[in-house]
Amino acid sequence: MAEEVKLFGIWESAFSCRVQIALKLKGINYEYIEEDLHNKSDLLLKYNPVHKKVPVLLHNGKPILESLVIIEYIDETWKDTPILPQDPRQRAMARFWAKFIDEKCFPALSRVCWNKEEEAREEAREHMKTLENELKDKKFFGGDNIGLVDIVANVIGFWLGVVEEAVGVEVLTEKEFPVLCKWIDAYVNCSVIKENLPPRDKLVSFFRAHFSK
Amino acid sequence: MAEEVKLFGIWESAFSCRVQIALKLKGINYEYIEEDLHNKSDLLLKYNPVHKKVPVLLHNGKPILESLVIIEYIDETWKDTPILPQDPRQRAMARFWAKFIDEKCFPALSRVCWNKEEEAREEAREHMKTLENELKDKKFFGGDNIGLVDIVANVIGFWLGVVEEAVGVEVLTEKEFPVLCKWIDAYVNCSVIKENLPPRDKLVSFFRAHFSK
Repeated sequence: MAEEVKLFGIWESAFSCRVQIALKLKGINYEYIEEDLHNKSDLLLKYNPVHKKVPVLLHNGKPILESLVIIEYIDETWKDTPILPQDPRQRAMARFWAKFIDEKCFPALSRVCWNKEEEAREEAREHMKTLENELKDKKFFGGDNIGLVDIVANVIGFWLGVVEEAVGVEVLTEKEFPVLCKWIDAYVNCSVIKENLPPRDKLVSFFRAHFSK
Repeated sequence: MAEEVKLFGIWESAFSCRVQIALKLKGINYEYIEEDLHNKSDLLLKYNPVHKKVPVLLHNGKPILESLVIIEYIDETWKDTPILPQDPRQRAMARFWAKFIDEKCFPALSRVCWNKEEEAREEAREHMKTLENELKDKKFFGGDNIGLVDIVANVIGFWLGVVEEAVGVEVLTEKEFPVLCKWIDAYVNCSVIKENLPPRDKLVSFFRAHFSK
């Protein structure tokens, strides 16, 4: 049976982009379907009735939901170019850091940038320091190559800088976070990342318009 | 090399209990170390410097953190008696529901029971309905046997009833949630669960004292 792979996403979402990067890393052909969250398609509501959100991966007609879950599914279904390490402890550490980014870094950064809550700044800085310490002298969180944590960290590697510019807030300075900034540089210049990020100017304009509402 | 497995936990925690159930399901011998969160041990701080919380699994001297991550680690390290399904899509669905319980059900139920926020009641009911619908006519979320989702759902299968009794709030009635109530009955009477839950009376007293502070 020919593989049928479809991805329902929105172009401005770091979470949709994660899945696109994972699919591209694996060299999987897929059809991308842009959703309109203000007017959700019947298919989106059918495939994700619980959360009614993107990304949704459809593989041979069956939906897989939640970006982290989707990435693990992709990694388990198409084995070439592993995204998670093979060793159970290394896998656990990758899952731990992915969770840390989603549950700690992203909410704190959102509060600082989106809501301009100054009291969240210290928390965000602390989390960034923790990531710096984890990264240390590695090129990527995954080591020499991009792995699960790097894909998940696109919210820091690309979206954060865009939102900082769009809303005029500064969180991640090179002086304070040299290791993360070096990683960002390597990250956005890595071909599979560079080729699958949305256009920076368009994204800045989108968030500028979004936050001036 | 002899396996050295230690678990740092607190007896009243549903999250520590999850790991105990997973270890018992696999038949793994381990040393349990009760932590005091008001006076955290140097070992806890050493092994979990990021979150400084339990549970922490120590396997041959190396820490694994976060209950969901620990359970997947246990399942990948000791293969007998699988906790997650083998099929990638079924694995993804189990991860999806585990995440749903942790990120949707648990926060909403906490708000209703812990903080007595009446406005969270409708949200909690909606999530419980979603779980009923997922469970339908299965004995366990895992099918005929207990799996990842059942282990994670101990917050609903046991802790919720205890907290309802301790604080005098009712959320999960048999009339409204017959499927979940039937599952709870099968769940707490399943030997690996029954033998590894904390004593109910002691837990009710603990939460009663805790919430009357």
